[in-house]
Amino acid sequence: MLPNASGKVVVTVGRRVKTRVEEEGKIEEINVELPHEDLPPWEEKNLVWVGKGIPRVDGFEKCTGKAKYTYDIHLPGMLYGKILRCPHPHARLIRLDTSKAQRLSGVKAILSQENAPPIPWYNDSFLFDRTLRCVGEEVAAVAAVDEYIARDALDMIEAEYESLPFVVDPEEALRPGAPPVRPGGNLLDGKPIIYSRGEIEQGFDEADLIIEENFSTQVQAHACMETHGSVVNWEGDHLTIWESTQGVSDVREGMAKALGIPISKVRVIKDFMGGGFGSKTREGKYTVIAALLAKMTGRPVKLMLDRKEEFYATGHRPSSLQYVKAGVKKDGSLTAIYLRSIGACGAYETPLFPSKFSMIDALARPYRELYHCPNVKTEVYPVYNNIPVHTAQRAPGHVEGTFALEQVMDQAAHQLGMDPIALRMKNYALKDQVEDFPYTRKALDQCYQKGAEKIQWEKRNKKPGEKKALICEGIGMAGQIWGGGGGPPAYAIIKINQDGTANLLTGTQDIGTGSKTVFVQIASEELGISPKDITITLGDTETTPYAPRSSGSRTVPSVGPAVRSAAADAKRQLLDLAGSILDSKAEDLAIREGQIYLKNNPTRKIPLKEITQKMGNNMIMGVGSRGPNPPQAAINVFGAQFAHVAVNTATGEVRVLKVVSIHDAGRVINSMTLNNQIEGGIVQGMGYGLMEEVIWDKGTGIMLTPNLHAYKLPTMLDIPEVVPGVAEGSDPANNIGAKGIGEPPKIPTAPAIANAIYNAIGVRLKELPITPDKVLRALKI
Amino acid sequence: MLPNASGKVVVTVGRRVKTRVEEEGKIEEINVELPHEDLPPWEEKNLVWVGKGIPRVDGFEKCTGKAKYTYDIHLPGMLYGKILRCPHPHARLIRLDTSKAQRLSGVKAILSQENAPPIPWYNDSFLFDRTLRCVGEEVAAVAAVDEYIARDALDMIEAEYESLPFVVDPEEALRPGAPPVRPGGNLLDGKPIIYSRGEIEQGFDEADLIIEENFSTQVQAHACMETHGSVVNWEGDHLTIWESTQGVSDVREGMAKALGIPISKVRVIKDFMGGGFGSKTREGKYTVIAALLAKMTGRPVKLMLDRKEEFYATGHRPSSLQYVKAGVKKDGSLTAIYLRSIGACGAYETPLFPSKFSMIDALARPYRELYHCPNVKTEVYPVYNNIPVHTAQRAPGHVEGTFALEQVMDQAAHQLGMDPIALRMKNYALKDQVEDFPYTRKALDQCYQKGAEKIQWEKRNKKPGEKKALICEGIGMAGQIWGGGGGPPAYAIIKINQDGTANLLTGTQDIGTGSKTVFVQIASEELGISPKDITITLGDTETTPYAPRSSGSRTVPSVGPAVRSAAADAKRQLLDLAGSILDSKAEDLAIREGQIYLKNNPTRKIPLKEITQKMGNNMIMGVGSRGPNPPQAAINVFGAQFAHVAVNTATGEVRVLKVVSIHDAGRVINSMTLNNQIEGGIVQGMGYGLMEEVIWDKGTGIMLTPNLHAYKLPTMLDIPEVVPGVAEGSDPANNIGAKGIGEPPKIPTAPAIANAIYNAIGVRLKELPITPDKVLRALKI
Repeated sequence: MLPNASGKVVVTVGRRVKTRVEEEGKIEEINVELPHEDLPPWEEKNLVWVGKGIPRVDGFEKCTGKAKYTYDIHLPGMLYGKILRCPHPHARLIRLDTSKAQRLSGVKAILSQENAPPIPWYNDSFLFDRTLRCVGEEVAAVAAVDEYIARDALDMIEAEYESLPFVVDPEEALRPGAPPVRPGGNLLDGKPIIYSRGEIEQGFDEADLIIEENFSTQVQAHACMETHGSVVNWEGDHLTIWESTQGVSDVREGMAKALGIPISKVRVIKDFMGGGFGSKTREGKYTVIAALLAKMTGRPVKLMLDRKEEFYATGHRPSSLQYVKAGVKKDGSLTAIYLRSIGACGAYETPLFPSKFSMIDALARPYRELYHCPNVKTEVYPVYNNIPVHTAQRAPGHVEGTFALEQVMDQAAHQLGMDPIALRMKNYALKDQVEDFPYTRKALDQCYQKGAEKIQWEKRNKKPGEKKALICEGIGMAGQIWGGGGGPPAYAIIKINQDGTANLLTGTQDIGTGSKTVFVQIASEELGISPKDITITLGDTETTPYAPRSSGSRTVPSVGPAVRSAAADAKRQLLDLAGSILDSKAEDLAIREGQIYLKNNPTRKIPLKEITQKMGNNMIMGVGSRGPNPPQAAINVFGAQFAHVAVNTATGEVRVLKVVSIHDAGRVINSMTLNNQIEGGIVQGMGYGLMEEVIWDKGTGIMLTPNLHAYKLPTMLDIPEVVPGVAEGSDPANNIGAKGIGEPPKIPTAPAIANAIYNAIGVRLKELPITPDKVLRALKI
Repeated sequence: MLPNASGKVVVTVGRRVKTRVEEEGKIEEINVELPHEDLPPWEEKNLVWVGKGIPRVDGFEKCTGKAKYTYDIHLPGMLYGKILRCPHPHARLIRLDTSKAQRLSGVKAILSQENAPPIPWYNDSFLFDRTLRCVGEEVAAVAAVDEYIARDALDMIEAEYESLPFVVDPEEALRPGAPPVRPGGNLLDGKPIIYSRGEIEQGFDEADLIIEENFSTQVQAHACMETHGSVVNWEGDHLTIWESTQGVSDVREGMAKALGIPISKVRVIKDFMGGGFGSKTREGKYTVIAALLAKMTGRPVKLMLDRKEEFYATGHRPSSLQYVKAGVKKDGSLTAIYLRSIGACGAYETPLFPSKFSMIDALARPYRELYHCPNVKTEVYPVYNNIPVHTAQRAPGHVEGTFALEQVMDQAAHQLGMDPIALRMKNYALKDQVEDFPYTRKALDQCYQKGAEKIQWEKRNKKPGEKKALICEGIGMAGQIWGGGGGPPAYAIIKINQDGTANLLTGTQDIGTGSKTVFVQIASEELGISPKDITITLGDTETTPYAPRSSGSRTVPSVGPAVRSAAADAKRQLLDLAGSILDSKAEDLAIREGQIYLKNNPTRKIPLKEITQKMGNNMIMGVGSRGPNPPQAAINVFGAQFAHVAVNTATGEVRVLKVVSIHDAGRVINSMTLNNQIEGGIVQGMGYGLMEEVIWDKGTGIMLTPNLHAYKLPTMLDIPEVVPGVAEGSDPANNIGAKGIGEPPKIPTAPAIANAIYNAIGVRLKELPITPDKVLRALKI
């Protein structure tokens, strides 16, 4: 039920994919037959490659610096693009004089509102607009023979602005009489997003204990190592874009639409990428600007953002204010959960999803979904303010919502005198609380149990803050629910070569997570060919079949089943060929570790290579697509994390000593890349919990933290001991049994740390990030 | 029945492809099921795009210089490779000192017999061998930071050779006691290649007239505008090669084998190419050398041959000596044809085909196939001599053989007092003369008739040389037979985009002939989408499905049917989707010019785009392969050419005024590219007939013509008026009805000119090229 790139809802029913198309209010349902049947689950005991922690297939390139990132693309005659950005939080551009810049030697083109096509962008704004609603908005762009000249040219552009009233603080923006960020009021769509089930007031009436708390979470930057950017090249009317992106197909479609050219004329390529975390799912203004500059000059253009632009112009995780009220009975059962929250959109709606799927509302999902609770109401106020637009970031909403919800649960357990895990098990949801569908699999109980063992849960302070010392240690935990089930459409092709090796093609991308390796393992497993003999090609819209963007932890569960399906299709053909050569029936044969053997007599075998040599050039090509998800079922990833912290009560410093992180993500394809994801999520979650914050100056609308000195990311020395793990087993949701693990480990990190701090010092930290000053302030109360 | 790249014979039986694998003397037959059924022929009256002369889809790139040839590939850190070549026609390398060159600043690697792996090459020789058998053989190679340093380094390598006896003239090479080019004698396999049917002596006994003539043809260079060469780049163990080649898949497989690495680790890319003509079907030594130098240095290497190397080291059309004896009855019917010929292989067997398919023997094919004749014997002597190895060139063998055969026919007609066309019709073959299979289609009679009309055949001199003048004009003609039917395997994929545009992928290459355009037209026709909305990707082994190399005029008839099949597969899915949306049965719908309409009510229609928008990302991907050729049938291209010449009897100069060229190549897909092929073939055939000749100095083994000054190619001023045409209609051999036209127009050009000269001046020129000195000499006899 997650929206896809085009704002269309894909639901799966039976063996067909039903696409519900919503356009201009009309809803139509159409069926698309999937070309391939699904396959039975792998037999656990026979697995050869799946589950192994094999090193990344592209490890050599990464370690030697040979890996080609978008930054590394150099084309002959290439120009460099730079963007002039608005210095005011709200202004009208009244004069722009580019004539001096135009005369600078080496400047080849200048683009602005005066000569750019009026390409719609955000709400009712344009690529270049005379009304500018945040610091950093695009005013003009330059293409020059080198970066230095391009920068100099920016300095020579004269821009005159009329200042307009502005508002940065989201609560202020909601007040009557606040400066209007946009026509139509600062509340997105003029009303809160409301979800409700049961009778919330009745629920509170039934409660023995009511918990009421206020929480706030900050703006977090994605801080990608590789900044956003593009290299573009026109060949006639054919546009090639090298883009640092999580979604080559999305960029392709977005660019075709923005430029008004056929999709078939746009090729988007991404090989290696240095981080995205949700911020690189679509083309940016910079992509379109680069394409226009290249068109104007007839030369390739490279336009990569610098670090300051990366902070200003690529989105961020929005801040939130959450008022939570929860009712529980004495036995711990939840009777009601109420959330009222304010989320700061920035100056525009995010272009990622239409407003009804707003990521601002996503923070209410854990309240609705994590626990069994009959009466739930969430009321979310998305508000415009004069800062750049927010976007998705690793587990959007869930990270913010879970920070508050899981502290409320911890507090309830404390007040009821219950073990926090016992309280959670008391409210264990056995089906999807919103749709009432059963889960395809839920092993959260195993996660609680395994995590508790590994952190030595029994060693936590029985009474929070019971030990008074300079350094107080504590243990806390939190759980999580996430989508991560993926789904169709996704396609793959496998070509078998004469020497028994294979080439695998699919239109997804490896955004640094190890997708290449995982897909090679899946193909290896199904085909019986060693991973070293399979070469994978990803991230090229022109030559590979469609696969979705890498977001929502969907890459493995969406594309993996298509890869297996393609491998199975190739295997069928290989076994047919082998059967005709060996005078056996294809169904009596199998392939394993490069050998074709008789199932009922595995000692009779022949190297696969001897069979493939005989196919000559009659290439075997397997084509696969992902089968549909099981109908009327919910696919979720669950997990529990446990933090062991030490709090210095004199300095307020929090040190995370250890995090145990156990998730039910279905079958593990590669234990090494899975652990990498868990480690990365914990580090980013810890940064969110303890140090990272984008700070806006309310008086000027300027960001005070637009660089890696002011914006505090965790470093190697901050990283705790991480104990990753999984609830063993396979999820029947798809033919590989795997769900996504990219986002889940981030979700419960901050609340586990906050609960551990509470366990250590007996005070609850409800404002993120939990910096030493806040700890000291809390201790003095 | 043509051998494919691996020396395997592919024959087609029914709906399956039977691959006869011949390895180490064992023959096995295996069946490979083709994934798709063939399609019914197009309905002529409904054709929208097929047949039109639409301009090339890549015309813009070519005209603006944006087209990327192998020469244009620049990679960061790229080195330049150069090859030191042997200056002797036969020698043993006794000392090689590279130490001075090694010390030259900028030199990064030197490769020679001393440090290169012993990669087998030709017969029993190696990539670098101590025994060198022709001028130009590879002795050492250098990689340096620029081309100039690389050249300087070559000059600094000291090589000492022991001279060995050598022989250049092929007749001399066959004589007892001739210097041995290789161990085992100078006659390839020690015996002539003999073909025989009927009773040749009995045939001559039955004849009323015997014609006996000797002919000789010269060595012709391919003279590609873009010389041979490669740019190679290793990323870990993955090798990418940009190669100027007619066969990306062949280069891929050849390189994997030469380097002993998996095929899956080799990627070969060719975008644009400046000519191949048969000489660029496989990797060269330069390709392997570039890969080894790149491996040694850890840097990309560009190794492009210079013009002199292009003449020496890339093969050529071999010379021939042909003794022909033909018997005819008074009514013109042929009773016997006998050929004895000597062909010069050069110092090695060509690596292209095993010797039993030797191109040297191909010159006997027209003798065996062009006319109905019960008694035929051909006896071909392939001989080694100390010049570089020959290779395929546009219609190998047929060009040489037809030059002689069609003059013999002309001579017979003259001596019998018959119209040369009438004589040919008298001997019109109604089935394949070797296999006894019927032709799928043969409209050579139409070609004769149409050609005769267009040249005004009746205006020729009734008596050859009857008019005595300074400038004597004459008209002559010749016919041709060629394979050109193509065949499986070939595969294609078509992806339909949400905006109703499409991307077409296939692993063939456009070697300058217009394949991209033709395949887009075929897909357009089948899908009902405009060619401007289809983007094609070719020439990348990693991302596109297998298609054969572009040789043997096979590209259109092999790959075209696979493209149509893929388009039909996509159309089926599109119509299914449209049916579910429009509440119609898919079989009641059709697509034409971007509109989906009801077959029984074409006014009810909906733009395709509205349907494709609804598929969301549920991509429609059509997969197609070529169906088999009809069983027990011969597929041939036929044609007739008519030349109108003017001979200056004082200077001996021959001026071709007009050539009419009519072929039965089945259906025309693009009339413009077809005419281009005819024009190109005629120009190259005229160069062969009148001016081009690679001359070897018999005393030194050195080539006297290794540049475009000494080697005389036709220029724009030499080109005659060309009237191209076809025998209308479609060939049932495959689902697009088309055969190949790349090679046929070259075949009958030289004999048509020679016959026209005979008609003009009454003397017959039997030695190629027909230069003024030979004309004068002939006139004085």
